[in-house]
Formats: sequence, structure tokens, C-alpha cells
Amino acid sequence: MKETEIAELGEFGLIKHLVSNFKSRNSSTIKAVGDDAAVIDYGQKMTLITTDLLLEGIHFDLTYCPLKHLGYKAAVVNFSDIYAMNGTPKQITVSLGISKRFTVEHIEELYAGIRLACEIYGVDLIGGDTSASVTGLLISITCIGEGDKDKIVYRNGAKDTDLICVSGDLGAAYMGLQLLEREKAVSKNAGNKEFSPAFEGKEYILERQLKPEARKDVIEELTQIGVKPTAMIDISDGLSSELLHICTQSNTGCIIYEERIPIDYQTACMAEEFNMNLVTAALNGGEDYELLFTVPLTEHEKVASMKTAKIIGRITKPELGCSMETRDGNELQLKAQGWNAFEH
Amino acid sequence: MKETEIAELGEFGLIKHLVSNFKSRNSSTIKAVGDDAAVIDYGQKMTLITTDLLLEGIHFDLTYCPLKHLGYKAAVVNFSDIYAMNGTPKQITVSLGISKRFTVEHIEELYAGIRLACEIYGVDLIGGDTSASVTGLLISITCIGEGDKDKIVYRNGAKDTDLICVSGDLGAAYMGLQLLEREKAVSKNAGNKEFSPAFEGKEYILERQLKPEARKDVIEELTQIGVKPTAMIDISDGLSSELLHICTQSNTGCIIYEERIPIDYQTACMAEEFNMNLVTAALNGGEDYELLFTVPLTEHEKVASMKTAKIIGRITKPELGCSMETRDGNELQLKAQGWNAFEH
Repeated sequence: MKETEIAELGEFGLIKHLVSNFKSRNSSTIKAVGDDAAVIDYGQKMTLITTDLLLEGIHFDLTYCPLKHLGYKAAVVNFSDIYAMNGTPKQITVSLGISKRFTVEHIEELYAGIRLACEIYGVDLIGGDTSASVTGLLISITCIGEGDKDKIVYRNGAKDTDLICVSGDLGAAYMGLQLLEREKAVSKNAGNKEFSPAFEGKEYILERQLKPEARKDVIEELTQIGVKPTAMIDISDGLSSELLHICTQSNTGCIIYEERIPIDYQTACMAEEFNMNLVTAALNGGEDYELLFTVPLTEHEKVASMKTAKIIGRITKPELGCSMETRDGNELQLKAQGWNAFEH
Repeated sequence: MKETEIAELGEFGLIKHLVSNFKSRNSSTIKAVGDDAAVIDYGQKMTLITTDLLLEGIHFDLTYCPLKHLGYKAAVVNFSDIYAMNGTPKQITVSLGISKRFTVEHIEELYAGIRLACEIYGVDLIGGDTSASVTGLLISITCIGEGDKDKIVYRNGAKDTDLICVSGDLGAAYMGLQLLEREKAVSKNAGNKEFSPAFEGKEYILERQLKPEARKDVIEELTQIGVKPTAMIDISDGLSSELLHICTQSNTGCIIYEERIPIDYQTACMAEEFNMNLVTAALNGGEDYELLFTVPLTEHEKVASMKTAKIIGRITKPELGCSMETRDGNELQLKAQGWNAFEH
């Protein structure tokens, strides 16, 4: 692989080189990269803004995370936040801090992933900032989206008796991370001996960790069946933590049923292999990027038929607290044990 | 000073604590911090987006840059980009990466500066992301602003015979930085001996470096006299570099006059003390955050009377190149020697 030092191109040269492969596809993108600010025209629609910071050594480990996947994931996790407002992601800005060990080709790989995500989700790159960093790689992405005034869904609209729904399945990204960390440790111990990681049959949980998707399809299905959620959030810090956000902001309680929590077969196998509690992984494992939402009880029939999501519980009065009914009929109080970068 | 470890509050606790002092003042801010994304309503106006990344050890040195000033500057440099589009900054998101050596009180100081800037410029804090970092402090700010469709000014609209104007004075922030670096070195050599930096009579250049302002007043004066620039850019990498951006994107040449370049007395004294070429500092010293703009020749009378800006040259045909006429009547070709984080 050819290696080009970033200093050869300089900041402006690097940006020019990287963005030359991006084409704007949204009519709302009036001016993308190349001026003091980008210009967007959403007409009468509302503007949605979300931002996410990813730091090497804190949020990702390049030992097992390919740069292209990392770029894809960094973009997609931002799209997920816009979908969680019942909106559509349209533009992103990408800021990078790059230490000396990275070459132009490395950053091209990262951008190839960002570009793929932009193509698949129909998003335009409209700006950013690129700088040298003292250590490591950092990625700061801001995503801008549009939403109809009367269709935006906040976290605070859940009402007593609403149904609680979740898309996809939970805990897979977390188990994928455990597997990657284990194989990294095994590889280290193997030293110079030949080593091939034990990834067979684990493709799903690895992909959930390394190359997650945002649930655009869930938003589309909700539109299709004519249901507007009363509250919605994306699951980045674990079902338990996100459900508590909805209940706190909506001033409600909730009950979910353990037997209804969707878990993939590979996630279950991996948890058993690690001798870990499967439900704990599903409740508190991070980075699922599924959508958690509540709908009025009157919509039961419609949401029960959804392909992309299932009902896992219901909203209650606040004095009943937030709990899970276990398979053996006990009630467990839900706790926010979500991931905290300042403690880990 | 009380010291509180950030882990005591955790990520959510820290954000909640920091943003509790911010009040939204813009009617366009529909939903600020506290959901998956912020919601903005600009009605029929256009949305402007700019972003800036500041890294410790690359863009700032906490040896002499107080955290409150740093917060103020980090916000203001983004506002400057929105003004450079002839727009009005309205909202910001603030993402921070924070290493272990920083306490809650440190981050409060930083936020106090951001809050002050928001108050003075009428901007709302609407979101962000906060994380632990492996080393140092990093600040990634995205600013969102509004602009009337027919009033936004790009870099590419300059025309042959247009007048070139610049606000304020140039080179001061650069000379302020030289002074701070010198006193830092002197202080280091002094070891434990008593040391007080030689800052008397240098207040202006220090403030230009440590606590710059965005030229809201220039935009206001242009509106007041009824002049819309044909092209505009803010000067962050030096007059020379920015003027070349305008000429390249507008496909023009230009000529500016050395004797017309505005330079403050303190900047001149400092350059003499350092035995540095004053005009080089004014042409290539960064971080001025002044506005550089072009106006049709027919507006000569109006812009000649401006309090906040002065005419320094004119736009020419592209084949004439970009040059400066020196005091002794020679012509020097302008070069982009702006700051490059990948080389320094």
C-alpha cells in the first residue's frame, strides 16, 4: 500500500483530496464544503442537529476495528439520532484530529466508510475541520436532518397505558465487543506464533459491533402503517438506560417483560460461552442503535404486525416505577448501568 | 478552589450540571439539550453550518491561555464564520474530550467563557457530546446560523474593479502569540525565582490572541449603509491566504496597497522588538478574525465612510495575478503562507 505523509498535502490539500469523491444528492444542500459555512435550505421544515465524538482508546480500538468500518459507524450512529426524532438525516460535517502515525491512505479508508454510509442513507458531506493531533485519532461528526413540525417525536411524550416497542434485537454489539477483546488478548499471548481469531459463526455479533446500521426502515414502516410514536429514543447506552430517559422525561413508570426482549441466537451462544447473564447484556450492553418507542394502546393491532419492531411492555403511572417482569414472575427494578467513558 | 473529579458526576451528570446555567433566547430554538437531536425552526430562512476543532498542544497552550478565555474564543471563532456568510449565529453544539487532569471546576471555567460568548452574541447552546480523552483537552464546536436567501455572501462573487475592504487591524493576534511564547520561555528559565511577565502596554495584542471578538458590528454597519458585499471571508489564516481564496474561487486577480493595510501601534512596536517584518505579520499572521470583503466600485462612497472597515485594494482580471504594491512602489506577489497544523 502506498503511503503518503499528511504533511505532503497539508490541511487544505487533504480536505480537497478527501471530499473530491463526495457528490451532493439533496436539493436542500445549497453549498457544501468550500466556504466559511455550509448553506442548507429546508424550506418550511424543521432542522434537527445531533453530534457525536469518537476518540481512539476510548470509543474504538484500531487493533480490530478497520478504518473503513470506523468511518461507516461514526456516520451511522449520528443518523440513528436523527431517525430517533422521526426525522431524515440530510447532511454531515466531519472533523478529524490525526496523529503522525496516520497516512493519507489511512484517512482515505476512513472517508471511504463515511462515503459509503452517506450513499446508503442519502446524506451529503457539507463541511468539517481537519487538524494534526498530539496522540491518536479523533472523529467529531455533526449530523443535520429535517423533520416535519407535526411529526417530530421527542423523548417526553409517553403516556400511561402506551405500548413500549423496540426494533431488531439487543445485546449483540456488546457480545461482539467481548469476543473482539478476547481474541485480541489471545492474539497478544500467541506472540509471533500463527494466530487466527475464532470468529466463525459469530459474524452477526461482529457486524453489530463493527458496522452497525441506523433503523431507517423502522421509521419507514411506522410511516407506512400510519403510526406516530408518542416518544422515541435510540438505544446507544442500553435498553434500561434509554427506557429510564423516556420515563423520566415523560414523568411515567413502565413495565417490560423479560420473555419479550428480542435477543439473537449468536448473542445467546456468546453469553453462554462467556458465562455472562444474557438479559444483563440485553438491558445494559451499549451500541445497539435500535429504536425504542412508545405508541398509544389504540395502535396495538398496527404495531403488533410490524416487521421491524415488537412490543416489549407498557408505560405505567410514575408511582409504579420502572421494572421488568422476569420469566419466573418476579419484578426487577430497572437501573441505568449504561456505559460511562469517565469511569471505564 | 474546590476540586471535583469528573467521574463523580459521570457524563450525564456533568452535562446536566454544565448546561443548567444556559437559557435559550432565540425563538428558533425549539428544543435544545436533552433529546437525541436538537430542533431548530428558521421558517423560510436558510440554515448556515460551520464547525471548528481545537486541540490542546496544537491550537492552544493552557500555560498562558485561561480556560474561560479559551471557551470564549472557541465559541467566537465559529460565530465569525457565520458572520462571514452575512448571516447571524443562533445556536451551537459543544463537544469536549477531557483527560484525567481536568476537574469539574476546570470545565465549569471553560463553560463560563462559552456562556459569556453566547450571552454577548445572542446564541443558544443546544447540544453536544462529552467524553473522557486519553490525553489533553479537545473542543469541537458546531455553530448553526440563519441567513436570508438573497443576502448570503459567498467567497466566489468578487468581480473585476470591486473594492477590497478589511475590518479592524491585522497581525495583532500573531504578535500577541509571539509575546506569550517569549514570556513562557523566560518564565521557564527563571525556574523557582520570582517572575512576572512583561505584559504592560501590550494589553491589546494579548486580548487579540486570547479573547478575540467576531465582527458582528461590521455586518450591522453594512446592513445599515445598505451594502451587500459581492464576496466575504473571515481572516483566520492571514490576509494573504484569505484573499487568495476569494480570488481563486471568484476567478479574479487583485491588488492591495501596503500603506493601506491596517496595523495597530502595539503590533508595530512588538514587531520591532522582535525584529520581525511587520507587513509579513499582517499578511500571514493568523487568528485575526476580521472580515475581508469585496464591494462593487459604485459603492465606493458608502464604504469609504465605514467606521468598522477600510478599503485596501481592488479586484482585477485573473491574468494580473494577486499582488501587493509596496510603499516604495514595487509589486510583490501574494502567497498563502497560512498556518498549517500538519507542518507546525
